[in-house]
Amino acid sequence: MKLYSMPSSGNSYKVRLLLALLGRNAEILDVEYQTDALDRAKADGRLPFGKAPVLELDDGRLLPESDAILCFLGAGTDFVPTDPYVHAQMLSWMFWEQNQHEGTVAVRAALSFYPQRRHLATPERMAELLTSGHANLQIMENRLADHDWLAGDNMTLADICLYGYTHTAGERGGFDMSRFPGINHWIQRISALPGYKGLNE
Amino acid sequence: MKLYSMPSSGNSYKVRLLLALLGRNAEILDVEYQTDALDRAKADGRLPFGKAPVLELDDGRLLPESDAILCFLGAGTDFVPTDPYVHAQMLSWMFWEQNQHEGTVAVRAALSFYPQRRHLATPERMAELLTSGHANLQIMENRLADHDWLAGDNMTLADICLYGYTHTAGERGGFDMSRFPGINHWIQRISALPGYKGLNE
Repeated sequence: MKLYSMPSSGNSYKVRLLLALLGRNAEILDVEYQTDALDRAKADGRLPFGKAPVLELDDGRLLPESDAILCFLGAGTDFVPTDPYVHAQMLSWMFWEQNQHEGTVAVRAALSFYPQRRHLATPERMAELLTSGHANLQIMENRLADHDWLAGDNMTLADICLYGYTHTAGERGGFDMSRFPGINHWIQRISALPGYKGLNE
Repeated sequence: MKLYSMPSSGNSYKVRLLLALLGRNAEILDVEYQTDALDRAKADGRLPFGKAPVLELDDGRLLPESDAILCFLGAGTDFVPTDPYVHAQMLSWMFWEQNQHEGTVAVRAALSFYPQRRHLATPERMAELLTSGHANLQIMENRLADHDWLAGDNMTLADICLYGYTHTAGERGGFDMSRFPGINHWIQRISALPGYKGLNE
């Protein structure tokens, strides 16, 4: 198995984190933002939707989209609930992450983090993203204030998925994480897991 | 079962379409954009992420996110592949839809369609969304030019999911659908299915 992975991106990190927690190996092919390696992977047709991460199976078949890769690699493990409703709740958080959380929490961080994007970080846009990002983090806090995990009683792929961009939301995105004690405890729980690897490990 | 459903929204329509194709019934509760019914559903805590659609089970449990509802209702039907890789490909399209397609194709349509949002439809934004929406439609076309369905050899939830906003992309979004013959044939295939219901039916 190979993973086309963008080292700086939360979407790619999610997959590396799941592999680490499962004790599974994949050959990691770095395709950083604005590098030749990324351009080459695109030109060679290895990134079907034009983005990393992409999982390449041993027979060459490709699978794009971080959360679909989590579902593929996680199938049959303890991170995927067997109860149909809890399973669907896990997916609700994961679709919400791609639709709402990523477009606010991750985008604000990216506008600050990547020098090439700073011209898009107008004061109006950054203020809007601060408000909408805090509102999305509050939706997570509402759940995590009195539950250990996002869906059901155990850790699922939804927690790995949302950890990707949430654990750097303060440092990279400039969000005020002191408002979200439930999220902070949840981040501590995940980062203390056996096998855990950080974003830059 | 009850479905909190926004009549004008492709996300809510996807779920109504799946119910129709499966011959299943749910009580449809209309929560149109900027109506008292929507405000009431939010105030009553019936929309956990603040948006429609939401499925309410007979015991009162709630499930938000259109694509998670499709997965919940579709489990065990012919619309969900049993092969793990094709299943994951179906999810790739569905996550991509929430992350890329909806934020361009559906957003451009919404800015034109809802009078309350027209002040956001600046010429610059509409031009940007036209370019990015066409690029996303081209990704679908690349697949549908020589395949009947998005994932594997049979229709899956991915087709229902992407049909939601794609079938009105020309009329509502102003996209040039003459560029995409594969998509147009796929739209015809879906709208000819037994049990099919249109957006306004």
